[in-house]
Parts: sequence; C-alpha cells; structure tokens
Amino acid sequence: MTEQTILDQKSINTIRFLAADAVQRARSGHPGTPMGAATMAYTLWDRFLKHNPTNPDWPDRDRFILSPGHASLLLYALLHLTGYDLSLEELQNFRQWGSKTPGHPEYGETPGVEVTTGPLGQGFAHGVGMAIAERWLAEHYNRPEHEIVGHYTYAIVSDGDMQEGVTSEAASLAGTLGLSKLIYLYDDNDIQIEGRTDIAFGENVAQRFAAYGWQVIGPIDGNDVAAIEAAIRQAQADTERPSLIICKTIIGYGSPEQDTAKVHGEPLGEEGVRAAKETLGWPQEPAFYVPDDVRDHMRQAVDRGQAAERAWQERLEEYAEAYPDLAERLQAELRGELPPGWDEGLADLFPPGTAPMATRNASGKVLNALVQRVHALTGGSADLAPSTKTALAGYGDFGWHEYCGHNMHFGVREHAMGAIAGGMALHGGVIPYAATFLTFSDYMRPPMRLAALMGLRVLYIFTHDSIGMGEDGPTHQPIEHLMNLRAVPNLTVIRPADATESVEAWRAALLNRSGPTALIFSRQNLPVLDRTEYASAEGVQRGGYVLWDSDDATPDVILIGTGSETHVALDAGKRLAAEGLKARVVSLPSWELFDRQPANYRESVLPADVRVRVAVEAGTRLGWEHYVGLDGAVVGMDGFGASAPAPILYEKFGITAEAAAAVARDLLGR
Amino acid sequence: MTEQTILDQKSINTIRFLAADAVQRARSGHPGTPMGAATMAYTLWDRFLKHNPTNPDWPDRDRFILSPGHASLLLYALLHLTGYDLSLEELQNFRQWGSKTPGHPEYGETPGVEVTTGPLGQGFAHGVGMAIAERWLAEHYNRPEHEIVGHYTYAIVSDGDMQEGVTSEAASLAGTLGLSKLIYLYDDNDIQIEGRTDIAFGENVAQRFAAYGWQVIGPIDGNDVAAIEAAIRQAQADTERPSLIICKTIIGYGSPEQDTAKVHGEPLGEEGVRAAKETLGWPQEPAFYVPDDVRDHMRQAVDRGQAAERAWQERLEEYAEAYPDLAERLQAELRGELPPGWDEGLADLFPPGTAPMATRNASGKVLNALVQRVHALTGGSADLAPSTKTALAGYGDFGWHEYCGHNMHFGVREHAMGAIAGGMALHGGVIPYAATFLTFSDYMRPPMRLAALMGLRVLYIFTHDSIGMGEDGPTHQPIEHLMNLRAVPNLTVIRPADATESVEAWRAALLNRSGPTALIFSRQNLPVLDRTEYASAEGVQRGGYVLWDSDDATPDVILIGTGSETHVALDAGKRLAAEGLKARVVSLPSWELFDRQPANYRESVLPADVRVRVAVEAGTRLGWEHYVGLDGAVVGMDGFGASAPAPILYEKFGITAEAAAAVARDLLGR
Repeated sequence: MTEQTILDQKSINTIRFLAADAVQRARSGHPGTPMGAATMAYTLWDRFLKHNPTNPDWPDRDRFILSPGHASLLLYALLHLTGYDLSLEELQNFRQWGSKTPGHPEYGETPGVEVTTGPLGQGFAHGVGMAIAERWLAEHYNRPEHEIVGHYTYAIVSDGDMQEGVTSEAASLAGTLGLSKLIYLYDDNDIQIEGRTDIAFGENVAQRFAAYGWQVIGPIDGNDVAAIEAAIRQAQADTERPSLIICKTIIGYGSPEQDTAKVHGEPLGEEGVRAAKETLGWPQEPAFYVPDDVRDHMRQAVDRGQAAERAWQERLEEYAEAYPDLAERLQAELRGELPPGWDEGLADLFPPGTAPMATRNASGKVLNALVQRVHALTGGSADLAPSTKTALAGYGDFGWHEYCGHNMHFGVREHAMGAIAGGMALHGGVIPYAATFLTFSDYMRPPMRLAALMGLRVLYIFTHDSIGMGEDGPTHQPIEHLMNLRAVPNLTVIRPADATESVEAWRAALLNRSGPTALIFSRQNLPVLDRTEYASAEGVQRGGYVLWDSDDATPDVILIGTGSETHVALDAGKRLAAEGLKARVVSLPSWELFDRQPANYRESVLPADVRVRVAVEAGTRLGWEHYVGLDGAVVGMDGFGASAPAPILYEKFGITAEAAAAVARDLLGR
Repeated sequence: MTEQTILDQKSINTIRFLAADAVQRARSGHPGTPMGAATMAYTLWDRFLKHNPTNPDWPDRDRFILSPGHASLLLYALLHLTGYDLSLEELQNFRQWGSKTPGHPEYGETPGVEVTTGPLGQGFAHGVGMAIAERWLAEHYNRPEHEIVGHYTYAIVSDGDMQEGVTSEAASLAGTLGLSKLIYLYDDNDIQIEGRTDIAFGENVAQRFAAYGWQVIGPIDGNDVAAIEAAIRQAQADTERPSLIICKTIIGYGSPEQDTAKVHGEPLGEEGVRAAKETLGWPQEPAFYVPDDVRDHMRQAVDRGQAAERAWQERLEEYAEAYPDLAERLQAELRGELPPGWDEGLADLFPPGTAPMATRNASGKVLNALVQRVHALTGGSADLAPSTKTALAGYGDFGWHEYCGHNMHFGVREHAMGAIAGGMALHGGVIPYAATFLTFSDYMRPPMRLAALMGLRVLYIFTHDSIGMGEDGPTHQPIEHLMNLRAVPNLTVIRPADATESVEAWRAALLNRSGPTALIFSRQNLPVLDRTEYASAEGVQRGGYVLWDSDDATPDVILIGTGSETHVALDAGKRLAAEGLKARVVSLPSWELFDRQPANYRESVLPADVRVRVAVEAGTRLGWEHYVGLDGAVVGMDGFGASAPAPILYEKFGITAEAAAAVARDLLGR
C-alpha cells in the first residue's frame, strides 16, 4: 500500500469509529450506514468537495447532502475532521439536549449541514432544487470569462431514498432538465430495516435512472477509493446529464453483524464495537480516537477551502468591475434582500370599483407585477399554471439546458415540487414559489414541514381553496387542509378575502424571511371590497382586523370570516345590523399573524367580553373554537364536499349569510 | 372494413360524443381524455372485461380503474352502455347536485365505480392493492380444480399518473411481487396541462417500467382495436410479471384542437363539438346519441356477465361441498364480517400489575392475538415492522409469487402503502393495516383522505407518536399530526393511554366498518393503569371517559389527557387533589368517538359549568379549545421538538404534571 492509501484507510476508519463510538456512547443511533458509506464520503470530501470549513456560507461552495439523515455521524465526523466549528466534545454529546449533533442533521443547528434530512427521499429531492438554483443563477449572472456561479451538488443517497416516490419525481425532473452538476452516490448495501432489500425492492435501479436520462456509473466497489474517484471524475465529465454512481457497500462494515439489518438502527454494543475495532485493526482505546496524521491530513481542507474562496472573491471583484449592477444585484439576492421599492404600486392594482375577481386571478396579477422588480422570484406549479395563475408572462421557461427562464415546469409532481422549492431556498439567491390546488397540498406535506422546521423563505400558492371550486367534486375540495396547514409550526397561512387583501398577502409573504408562507386563493370570483367603505386591507399585515362595525358601541355579535367566507360574514353582519343588532365583522386571513399581535390589539378586534362570536369558513370547524370558544359557533363543513356548481354547494352545505345570521340569533337567544 | 370493425368504430365514437356532449352540457369537465382513450377502454371492456353490469358487487369480477379520474365520462359512458344502473339522464346531469355522475368517479355514488379517482397516481396504486388482495385470497382459498378467486385488475393510466411518486412506488412493488394479473393501459398522449409532456417529463417510461420488472408492451397505436386486443392477450399470457401496455393516443381525438392542452379541461364549445362530429362522421343531432346497434352490441355485456357469474356460482357451490369451512369463511370475509368470538380474551392480555409497556408493544401483542381469530387481517409497514411492532409472528411473508403470507413488506413507500391498503379494502375479503411512524403519516395523506371519503375499513398504525420518541429529533417527532388526522372527515383517531386502552382501541378499530381508523401508539414505556383503581378501559369505546375523580362533588378543575399525556394529567390531578382541590381526570383517546356520544353522556364527562379545564397533549395546542374553550388552557407544544432523551424533552418543553397543575392553579386564581 502506498502512503496515501494507508492514510486514506486510516481516515476512513477514523470516521467509522467516531460513528460507532458516538452511537455507543449515546446508546442510540445508527452506526451501520456511517461505517458502510465512510469510503464514499471520504473520497468525495477529500478529493473533490469545494468548501471552506471556516466559512460554511460561501455562496459558491459545492453542496453536500446526506440524504439518509440517520447516518448523521458520517457527516458530523467529516465536519469535525475537516475543520468546521464542531468539536470532538460535540460528537461525544451526540443526540443530547443542546448539542450541535442531533440525531439527524438539522439545518441551522450545525455549521456545514446544508439541509435537514431524516425523512427519506427529501435530501435527494432538495438537492435537485439546489442544482436548479445553481444553474438558474449561473445562467443569469455568469458572463464570458466570468464564472461566478459554478458548483456541484453532491449527495449520498440510500436504498430507502430510492424507494420513496419523491425521489422518483425529482430524479425524473432532474433528467428532463439535464442537471449535469448534480452527482449522487448511491450507497447500495442491499439492507433495509425489515431485511434484505429484495423483499420489497427488486427493481433494477441502474436501468431506472438511465430511463430518467441520468448517466449511471457502476456498480463499483464502495470501499475502493480509486474506483470512487474515477467514477466522480466520469460524472463531472458528463456535461449533459446528472450522474448516479452506484456503490456496492456493506452496512456496518467491520462489525460482527455487518451486512444485516441489525447494524442499521442500534448501537453495536460494547462487544460489537470491540470486535469491529479488532477486525479493522483499530486501537481499542481511546474511544473517539483521531490519529494525528489523519487530523493533519483532513484539516488541509481549511487551506484548500480558504484558497478556493479567495480565488472566487478575486473573480467576483473582477466581475464587479465589469458588471457592477449585476454584481450588486447578485449579492443582494444572495443575502435574501428585496430591492428598494419592491412593492411600489401594488396597492393600486385593484382600485375601488374593480369588478369581482377570483383571488387566484388577483394573485396572478400581483405575482406578475412583483417579478418586474423582484428578479429573484422564480417558481412554477405541478402542471397547473393556467389554473393557479402562476405563469410569469414574458419570463421564459426553465427547461433542458435552458436555465434562464423563471417559469419552472414541475410536472404532476407536487411532492418533488415542494422539496425542490425548499432546496432552491436553501441554495439562496432565489425566492422560490410552488403552486397547486389546495387539496393537493396533501401530496407535499413532508417538504413543507421541513421548510417550516428549517425556516426557509418558500412561497406556496394554493388555489381552488374550498367547495367554491365547484364541479370537480370532493377529491378536489379542501376541507381539513386550511386547518392542517395552520397547525404546522412556523408556517404562515394567509387566505385573503379579495383582490386587495391578496396584494397584502403577497406583501406579507415576501416579508416573511423566517419561514414559509402558504397563500390561499379562490377559484371563484369574489367581490372586491371598496376600501373607502371598509377598513384598509393593510390590516392583513396584522393577521386580522375589524373590517366593518355597524356601530361604535361594543358589538352584540362578532362575525369572523376568512377568504371567500369573509363576504358571507359581512352579509350576515349587515343582516343582523338591519335587525337592530350591533354587529362587527372581522376579516381574519392569517391566524399566525394575528396571534403574534400584542394582546391589546387582539382585544381591540375580539373583545374578551363579547362571547357571541360566529366564525364562517368553508372548511373543517375543528380549531375555530380558538376564536369562538365554547359559547360561539362555527359555520363550516362537517364532511366532504360534492360535485356541483359552487353556488349550489354553498346553499346545500349551509355556508350562507342566512345560516350565519341564524346561528348568531340563536346564540343571542333571539 | 368488416361489420365488426364498423360496429367497433361506431361504439367508440358513441363513447367519445357522449363525453363531448356531456361536458358541453355541463359547461365544465374534461373531454380530451375520454375522446383520446375511448378505443383503449372500449377494446378492454368489449373483448376482455369480466363483469356483470347487473351485479356490480360480484366478488370475482375483473376490477377496472380509471386512474385519470377527470376522464370520468369515459367510465360513465361505458357503464351506461354496458347496462349498469346509470341512465342516459344521469349522463345528461353530469356534475350536477344529486346526480350519479360527479366530476370525478366517486366510489359508492355510481354503480360500477371501483374506486374514487381524481388525485393523480391514486388509481394506479389502489389497483396494486386490489391485485394483492386478489392473489392473497386466491392463495388462501383456491384449491386444485377449484379456482374461486381469479380475476384481473385493469387500469387506464395517464401521463399525469406516471409522473406522481406514488405510482413509482406502487409500480416498483408490483414488479417486485410479480403481480401478473395486473394489466395497465397507458394513455400516452404527450400532452399535459402546461403543454407537451416533454417540458417536464423527458423520461423513457418503457425502460423505467422494465426496470421495475414489468412486461412492457408497445408503444402501440391506441386507436387500433386489433393492436390493443393483441397486446392485452400478450399481457395475460405473462404469468410472472405485471404488464404495461403503452398506447399512443391523441387527446381530444377528432376535435379541431386535438393534440393540444386546450382540450384537456374545458368544454370543446358548441362549434368544437360540431366540428368534431363532422370530422368523425357523427350525426350532429341528437346530442347524447346512442345508435341502436351500438346499444344492442354493448348491452351484450349483461348476458355475458350474468353467464360468467352463474358459472362462478356453480364453481362456488362445488367448492362449498368439497371445502365447506373454507367456503363459509371466505364468504364471511367477503361480507366483511368478523368471526364469532373474535375479541375473546383480549381484555385479559394486560391484567393489573402488568409492567410498564410502550403502547406500540401492547398493540403488537393485541394484533398478534387478533390474527389468530381474524384471518382476514393482513398488512405491514413501510420498512418499520420491528419498530411499529406490526409483524405477525408465524404468519409468513407476502413476496414474489409467495402470496400466502400475512406480512406485507411495502418498502420505504408510505404513500403507496396507504393507497395499496385502500385498494385491498376496496377489493374486499381482507382487513388491511398499514404502519409507520406518526410523523410519516404526512407521506400518505392523499390515500388516507380517499379511504375516509370512500368509507373504507383500513387500519393505520402510527407509532412514535410524540417527542416521547426521543433522540431521533424534530423530523421524527409529530407535532401537528394528531390534529391533522382528527381534522379529516370520517377518519377515526384513537390514541390510547396504556396497554388496556390499546386493547379497546383495536376493538373499536375493527368494529368501525364505515371508515378508516388511525391507531396512535407510543414508542416509550407507559404505566399500565390498574383498572381496579381507575375506570374501565372500555370507556375508550365512547371516545372519552372519567378516568378518575378525586371527589364525588362537581369538580373544580378537569384535566384532560390523551395517550402518554393521560398519565401527566392524572399526576397533575392528584397533585391538585392533594392540595384540597376537587380534580377530575378525563381520558380522551378519541375525539371522533366522544363527539358522537349523546349530549348527556358528554355532559357527564365534561359538565358545561366547569370551565376550568386543562388539556395535556404533547402536540399542537391548536384545536384543543374545542374542549377547553377560551377559559381553559392547553399544555402542549408551541413549536418543533428536539433531539434528546424523551424525559429531558418533556421537561424542557414543559409537558409535565407540575406545569399542568400550575396552569390549573393559575386558572383557579390560586
């Protein structure tokens, strides 16, 4: 063996036993994959990965994703060894409260973790989003002799990832787009939790990825550094297609129970760790052993990374001289800033007198106005652009080696769309949006949850938001969806009542930098409220506001509506006022924004003493007691919808002003 | 052209124009796919489909699924023409309130509709479940010279279906299992809503399905009856693999805008219909024209179907003579009946003094006891059987041409698992269960919603139900999930507090024949409540019950808990009682069951006058005001979890008896 080979093996074994020792110490975790995939990961990081451990935020770094997040120690070991701010003590505190080494990699918790992984398939699909953002920015900003954006997106992906549908969706799109800077290493170890993979996974993965339009390399020996190095070079050489490198590996390599499901998700046990160290010729003591030569060798990543970033900074300076405006905008976009005056003129889009309009149409107009100023806005829908009104007119399509367009075509792939949007936001430089019908938000819940957990600025546009979408029937009519989105921590949901509130909803969404926003729009036309008569739509920024009071005095009854049902509530309020009652109508488009207001503001909208409250929303009643309590009432849906024209559905399901007024009278004992 | 050919073409055009006319009349709908896929559907139904229009419930009928549900008129036309109870008037009332012809096919609304479709990919995956159930029953009940179970599962699937991840998951599993009686016709028309499919879908579908282990036939001309006939025969001849027949078709065939996205989702317009009729040589009048010879020809399905069913009945009688016990059990299972004494002895599984036990473990014991008597129970998990405790010991694995086992291995494919379970329930004869971690219920929401909408008896087993799962961290810790499931109409959610409630939860689940049930279990050990000291666990059948009262008098405070937090509530109640307060502790494992109880029962548990109520659940607070109102409080989670041992997480997130008691004192002003 050459000296290099010996050092490679020592480094790889260091990673393996940092993982085995940390899992053993935590008495919890997954040793098998770090031990099996250590060679793949080491080779990639040592020979290829462009990164600067002292600046994990360098925009042009290569992205590395560990899609099987349960193998987190593989990543933590690499981060520690290459010089990130992650001490050995942190590895020794694996899975403990307050450590930087949670059970699965958590974006924002650990320097160098590019994306939260754990739910399988998500890492794979988020990587596709990163590669899309990279190409989009490269196309928009690189100029002849000025390559400012140009990096790879690498991932290690597992058998479990390969089985998830979101992976199939993302892989098919990546092939369609020809994302050649996407290079994935497949840790093909033939084991899953229930046994050998052939019990559930008999397919030919190589053939499947070839069908998607990927370059497929291998199977190669996943313990062979030279073979992995050659494969990655071959992957880089293909400038037309993404590449999948199939690496045959042995889960729990070196342990007595290697190549079985037993090493997947439990500590090896003291005896197991001891035996593995013996098998691989590793010192039994100390635990968490890092040989000095390994540390020196791997820490060279810092020098290499700093030099690479310096070179890039120099290129950026030259670029800034040649293209000052572009350079400035790029950097602002990378910082996630909105340009000055980004929302100017929006409020004038829908003046008093505007004809009734579906809020999806209003949204389309706002979005098309926004993109004129907010260059970073890019996104698309899961094959519903004409219905969700999300096409950006004049901004081109993003397609096979045509990476300049703002309009993404995700195909009928809501799940991958959600993950790709998350990956784009993680990459930075773009503000992604993803659109479909509200009912199909069900297909994309896992990546929406991850975006909320990671605090990503992703915009979801969900139209056809109730039985008001009409004839397509119950499969297409959301019932539980609004509430289910509201229940996700750190996801802001806004359901505007009309075109003017739609403007404010979009403003709020773009201003929300600490998490995703779901914008909820109607299919059907809704009156545009005359804001000279009613309170300003700017109230949307506070989540809820008094839209109309019949009287200055304390109201007898408060009617609360969202979206299309705000108009139902308003009509009911006017009916009650005509009967001599003091009625208040509250527009409450966003629970999250409202609940964040100071108590005195909330009290001014919903006075604690007024308990006769009626909420109106064409969705599940569940949850509305948050505002109406046990003494109020909810006019909502008790079951699924039906197929018929929308006005008939509102009548049949009793979501009407008449019904709301009747409920209020009932509560008032009249 | 032969006479047969002429009649074929006339029949096909009848279907096309029933669709075009109905969409035109409704001014809403999707004419393109019925017109494009009419030849495929007609050929299958006319030459192959084994069905009896006068008895849509004949158990051994072939199943037919229209996966692109938006093409519902294709199915409605076939049902009408072949003699199902679906009049021409119903077609004329397409998409109207109360008609049997909703916008998408709805199971239970229209005789002959085998599954609700519309959300793409679901039909494809539900069909795999039907084919699994068919093979399972065949293996269990067929005997040499007695084939009682033996039918095909056919589907028409679309470009949109092919793009959805759930399709990939289900297709991979179908190939792995070698489900040769599964025959799908792919309506490959190159068009999707946003344009030509190549904008988002460049993959080679034939190669992809070959990789899954399917026989791929074609591409053939989807307008060529003879070619389709030959292809289906070739598919039937393969007894090892499922088959995909790729049919090249033209969306909106015959219309002036055929082969464009314009004919996908909108009426052709009067002029468009006129031009299409002219192009295809069809009489302009009357609308909804069915030539007599076409009606006579297609109605022969009734005679053929009745004869086929009679022959099957005769075979069944012979079988019943040879195997009376088997025949009786099969028929009971097909009726969905539970055997006498099915739940005997369950209540004795966990006597007083049983050591603390995770409810997932209790569930595993109950499930393994149940299957001894309830033969129809079969299911599995998305590669988490060891963790969800759902393996049926001694009941074998369901694998490639080994269809006798009760243990399904779905692979890491939650979404397909959900749809397959739904398909199995639709097929009948089995009671399917599907298991994963609660947080991954997010991956399978679309088929769960469909099961609720269709009223299917599907059992979901969700374990690792809170931060109590510990070190795996926030991606694996459910927060919003419990409430999100409760919000789905007709889905019953039960989260038992201990082993004894787990028995009752399983009983309730099996007794629920009108919809799916989600059983929610803990990873961590929980005390087993001594039912000689506390109220009987049978209270679970009423959803909620008074577990413990400190006093006979009206309580000062009511503490409400579910699952693991019932113990927290109980501890808090005892602390408050020790301070001299009158405390009541309510165990509320199922909101759905509780809310269905008579008002006086609910009042006896939660007296309206007692407003000092504290709910404790380690999930989102949202929704709990349903029981605690504006005057109570919720001890719950405000954000995501974290990675650490479970006891530390409960402390750090304040889900403790101490915190609950403090909140109660606060509400009481003490």
